[in-house]
Amino acid sequence: MNYRFSNRVGTFTSSAVREILKLTQSSNVISFAGGLPAEEHFPVKAIGEAFERVLAGGNRALQYGLTEGYTPLREKICEWMASKGITVTPDDMLLTTGSQQAIDLLTRVYIDAGDVILVEKPTYLSALQVFRSYGAQIVSVDGDEDGLDTADLEAKLKQYRPKLVYVIPTFSNPTGKAWSVERRKAVLKLCREHEALILEDNPYGELKFGDASVTYPSIFSLDEHPKGSGVVYTSTFSKTAAPALRTGWVMGDPEIIRHMTRVKQAADLHSSSLDQQTLYQLMAHFDLEGHIEFVRKEYEARMRQMAEQLQKQQWPGVKWNEPKGGMFFWLELPEAVDTAELMKTAVGFGVAFVPGVSFFADDAAKKNMLRLNFTHNDFAGTIEGFERLNRAMETVLVKQ
Amino acid sequence: MNYRFSNRVGTFTSSAVREILKLTQSSNVISFAGGLPAEEHFPVKAIGEAFERVLAGGNRALQYGLTEGYTPLREKICEWMASKGITVTPDDMLLTTGSQQAIDLLTRVYIDAGDVILVEKPTYLSALQVFRSYGAQIVSVDGDEDGLDTADLEAKLKQYRPKLVYVIPTFSNPTGKAWSVERRKAVLKLCREHEALILEDNPYGELKFGDASVTYPSIFSLDEHPKGSGVVYTSTFSKTAAPALRTGWVMGDPEIIRHMTRVKQAADLHSSSLDQQTLYQLMAHFDLEGHIEFVRKEYEARMRQMAEQLQKQQWPGVKWNEPKGGMFFWLELPEAVDTAELMKTAVGFGVAFVPGVSFFADDAAKKNMLRLNFTHNDFAGTIEGFERLNRAMETVLVKQ
Repeated sequence: MNYRFSNRVGTFTSSAVREILKLTQSSNVISFAGGLPAEEHFPVKAIGEAFERVLAGGNRALQYGLTEGYTPLREKICEWMASKGITVTPDDMLLTTGSQQAIDLLTRVYIDAGDVILVEKPTYLSALQVFRSYGAQIVSVDGDEDGLDTADLEAKLKQYRPKLVYVIPTFSNPTGKAWSVERRKAVLKLCREHEALILEDNPYGELKFGDASVTYPSIFSLDEHPKGSGVVYTSTFSKTAAPALRTGWVMGDPEIIRHMTRVKQAADLHSSSLDQQTLYQLMAHFDLEGHIEFVRKEYEARMRQMAEQLQKQQWPGVKWNEPKGGMFFWLELPEAVDTAELMKTAVGFGVAFVPGVSFFADDAAKKNMLRLNFTHNDFAGTIEGFERLNRAMETVLVKQ
Repeated sequence: MNYRFSNRVGTFTSSAVREILKLTQSSNVISFAGGLPAEEHFPVKAIGEAFERVLAGGNRALQYGLTEGYTPLREKICEWMASKGITVTPDDMLLTTGSQQAIDLLTRVYIDAGDVILVEKPTYLSALQVFRSYGAQIVSVDGDEDGLDTADLEAKLKQYRPKLVYVIPTFSNPTGKAWSVERRKAVLKLCREHEALILEDNPYGELKFGDASVTYPSIFSLDEHPKGSGVVYTSTFSKTAAPALRTGWVMGDPEIIRHMTRVKQAADLHSSSLDQQTLYQLMAHFDLEGHIEFVRKEYEARMRQMAEQLQKQQWPGVKWNEPKGGMFFWLELPEAVDTAELMKTAVGFGVAFVPGVSFFADDAAKKNMLRLNFTHNDFAGTIEGFERLNRAMETVLVKQ
């Protein structure tokens, strides 16, 4: 049988995230690769009780649900968003299989082959994969610690007339940086002027470190056009409750949400309604805010411990900034080092990370960066992992 | 903000299934529309116990999982398939968010705009939606009670060189018919000769009525080429365990499955692993075969009761066959009746069905058919629903 695959399968040459998730299944490897939350802090008991409540509510709980998602959960998320100063209604919202599906569905309703999408440099690798699979032309925009470079953004808005601008302004994956409020406003203004829709991906917003009085308003909340919104916002419970619940949400103009809902109907009818109902019961009967605060503190402690480890190693020519939140350190190595090659050495020593090249669109690829997750391993694991990582580093840093 | 949607949103003008699912939420309407299982027979207690077992297994249960799906469940499904004479390994299998997602993912890896897909006349409406959204040219093939018409199939294989042939050979949605073994073999042979991949959709195979000694082997199992398989097979637990678990699976050549897995990674990373783990525990500790046999008998009784109701009404010019399994009666009304119009009248009387036109590709649309589900309503509901349906029917059948 000669198979005749579609042209788009050619865009899936790399499958870095999948390989990463596989590495985490091996017990011999200490993985700093995946963006995994700490398992030991999952609210297992509360999730068990929430599930019991779902089933106690009657057999209907096990029937097909709405494509839009379980209505009481959408209402609950609206309440939660309101407590953070964001006003939305359940009609502006679609529940998805993680925020990954929100990225896919928006791309599906908005991007034809050849359309331009602007992205950060670097940015989330699996978003790049989605964009490529729809034949988008991906163009990288320069940036600094405060966010996208507005001069470069303006030039590229004019040159390419992009349909979409994809950003992770709060605790970026992979860099851990947080955009300033001024930059958020400036980027929003520019994108509105050029009618480029912003996709604001915010999986990590709740995981903020440092001075509690510093806040980072979402670009969505800064947009003063609730009708004809210039921003589509997506987030997830994967990092704050549990990944296995696979529940994300996406908010935006009702016209956009309606199109995404129709596409989702064809894609999978609806996401797991058991998961959605369980999350609803969890939010209704468990102190999720308190739990998030507990996790946030724990992650901040783990971040500081990894920062100490990084300082201690004194690897020559290796640069990094302390992340302001989220899950990752982003390391720059001397230019001659190819971290994809280093990764092979590292796995030999029993430790894993993500080579940085995966986080760049083709027009901006850099080979000497890598990403380290600090949330998944406990203190002992991190120390042991750094000993192994150090042995891998020595093989390339000595060679300089 | 002027939105610039992708061209493919234009293919989503209809959203029949979504509207159907919405109708079922209203308590005033007796719905024969959706393909809903009987809620009162969901194994709620067993699912609760299965979930407890999942959580008792440790916090890891709530972590991210593999894109391919929970390995022990894939192994369990392989065992289950083996008991039905189908040999597959976990590497030939991908777990999906219902079999709907399997249809979407296969189309995504196999179909470019303009490629031809052959379908039955009529066929599953949400598969048509998926095919349209990828810009496929959909061509309908004639058929009879035994399956696709091989002469018409051969002519169209030659004329269009289709990449894909989509069929529901066992208890078709919407017609309830089952293909003969001879026809299955003939269709497989023809498709192999013309290198057209068969997508065999089998959500209803377990729901077989009548003579227990009559069996319907899947086309997948008749294919003697385990490597270079000419058939991709998908099924789901939605009709036999519970729809809310949203777990389907797809089996086929490892090369196809590998491509689908990469596309799924971009689409949603993985489906709910809590659902998958719960299903695994359900299959390991609950008599799922026994439960399916119980449900099968109940559905056969409901089918016979609806057949009685249909006989009793003696609607002039209305024809139907008794379904051999599955969930649906398929009615042909006099040619002048537009069932989409009739549906509006029917909803006014508090009863719903699916107008038949949604089940036809554009090249074969017929307006005088409708689909009735017999599995969801209990006896009293069906009798009351038929009284209402009769009032709606009288408004069009009298007018002839």
